[in-house]
Amino acid sequence: MSQPTISQDLIVLAHELADISGQTIRSYYRHDVSIVSKADDSPVTVADREAERVMRERIRAARPNDGIIGEEHGEENTDAEWVWVLDPIDGTKSFTVGRPLFVTLIGLLHFGKPVLGVINQPIVNDRWIGGVGVPSTLNGKPIAASQISDLAEARIGTTGPEHLQACADVFKDLVKACRYPVYGGDGYLYGQVAAGWLDIVVEEGLKLHDYAALAPVIIGAGGVMTDWQGEPLRLGSAGRVLAAGNAALHAQVLPALRSLPV
Amino acid sequence: MSQPTISQDLIVLAHELADISGQTIRSYYRHDVSIVSKADDSPVTVADREAERVMRERIRAARPNDGIIGEEHGEENTDAEWVWVLDPIDGTKSFTVGRPLFVTLIGLLHFGKPVLGVINQPIVNDRWIGGVGVPSTLNGKPIAASQISDLAEARIGTTGPEHLQACADVFKDLVKACRYPVYGGDGYLYGQVAAGWLDIVVEEGLKLHDYAALAPVIIGAGGVMTDWQGEPLRLGSAGRVLAAGNAALHAQVLPALRSLPV
Repeated sequence: MSQPTISQDLIVLAHELADISGQTIRSYYRHDVSIVSKADDSPVTVADREAERVMRERIRAARPNDGIIGEEHGEENTDAEWVWVLDPIDGTKSFTVGRPLFVTLIGLLHFGKPVLGVINQPIVNDRWIGGVGVPSTLNGKPIAASQISDLAEARIGTTGPEHLQACADVFKDLVKACRYPVYGGDGYLYGQVAAGWLDIVVEEGLKLHDYAALAPVIIGAGGVMTDWQGEPLRLGSAGRVLAAGNAALHAQVLPALRSLPV
Repeated sequence: MSQPTISQDLIVLAHELADISGQTIRSYYRHDVSIVSKADDSPVTVADREAERVMRERIRAARPNDGIIGEEHGEENTDAEWVWVLDPIDGTKSFTVGRPLFVTLIGLLHFGKPVLGVINQPIVNDRWIGGVGVPSTLNGKPIAASQISDLAEARIGTTGPEHLQACADVFKDLVKACRYPVYGGDGYLYGQVAAGWLDIVVEEGLKLHDYAALAPVIIGAGGVMTDWQGEPLRLGSAGRVLAAGNAALHAQVLPALRSLPV
């Protein structure tokens, strides 16, 4: 399939979604909100549901034929050519403990392939956007992923060791081989890779609404983000991901992950 | 020794130090800075040294008889009644990877006892201040540490598992017993405890320039912060710390830490 053209209209809408979700989320940040436990015990806030609601309304108004997959309010019209994938608050724990590292993730799929992503931190006002044919920017300024290809110089990140099961031992070995690890951050970590500040992120258990936004931002910054088989992420991927600043670094980390039982 | 009175002059100076260090640090954040490796391999930036320099100048000008202990530029006049303890950038890794969680720590010792602390995040503009007889505030608003005393409801934090040696196993057990863990954050974690968003922090290897600012902010918010023997932190403490939102929670965590070899 040929590469789609990401029109300016799509980019403008992606920014609008980040604007309106940010407005909603800011009004709840560090305020008392009723917290409902989900099956996985991550705190979900009113802000989460409300921010997704306003984004869905905006998409329906602007592009009624597009599909939507949201973390909070489900799927609609997923056979459409263009499908928006929304995670209003990625890093709900960060949100709950008053830490401005949670992000809003807005991804756009073209026939199932992630082609545009936004990573938006509405408290610090850090907004990454990028994708296929859309060079990634942070707050409007061009960014480039790191050129560090020496593992001993690389900075590696993951949200928390408790989220690593299959790759727990591989990750420990990587921490020893790398310059230093950084923990916490969820989707923010991938923005840091896109900006060239962090070199490697290894995680598992990611959902479509995570990687659909993250992969395009990394790729648009010249980085590499795949599953543990080295395959591009797309609708249906397993959510085991490796992001790296460049192909040479990615190639050094991949074999250990690829060798893990599928 | 009777409790000292923290005069308004001292509080004003503490705020000024946070203001001027923040100004310096902001000018270097996410800019290229030459990074020098220290023995412990944490990146130290120009911002770190420069921010301490401007704080020391301000202290010397305002209160020439006070002592100063700084992470970057050493000690002077440490026999003074009042000694300022400065860590311009706590969380240098966060700074280096472009993450707004590093903090400036400003502590004040009275005859070796931490009595006033500032935790300042100059990018997000989060400023905690509090101490002995000084109820803690965040950005001028009163705060209170959490009342959660049930371990199963408690949120526990630490900067990174790689920093935990002596208490590594105890921490793993605590993570299982608690509601969920939060990683990353350095001094920011203690501000979160003071604000009531986080319930427990366990760390080791802290230096005077860390805990001298942290303990007063926690205590001024009604929380408890001690070493692993349950003793108040002071000049010469071992840097093994337990912070908790309240005494009941602190008492549940302490025994496991106290039983570790000294």
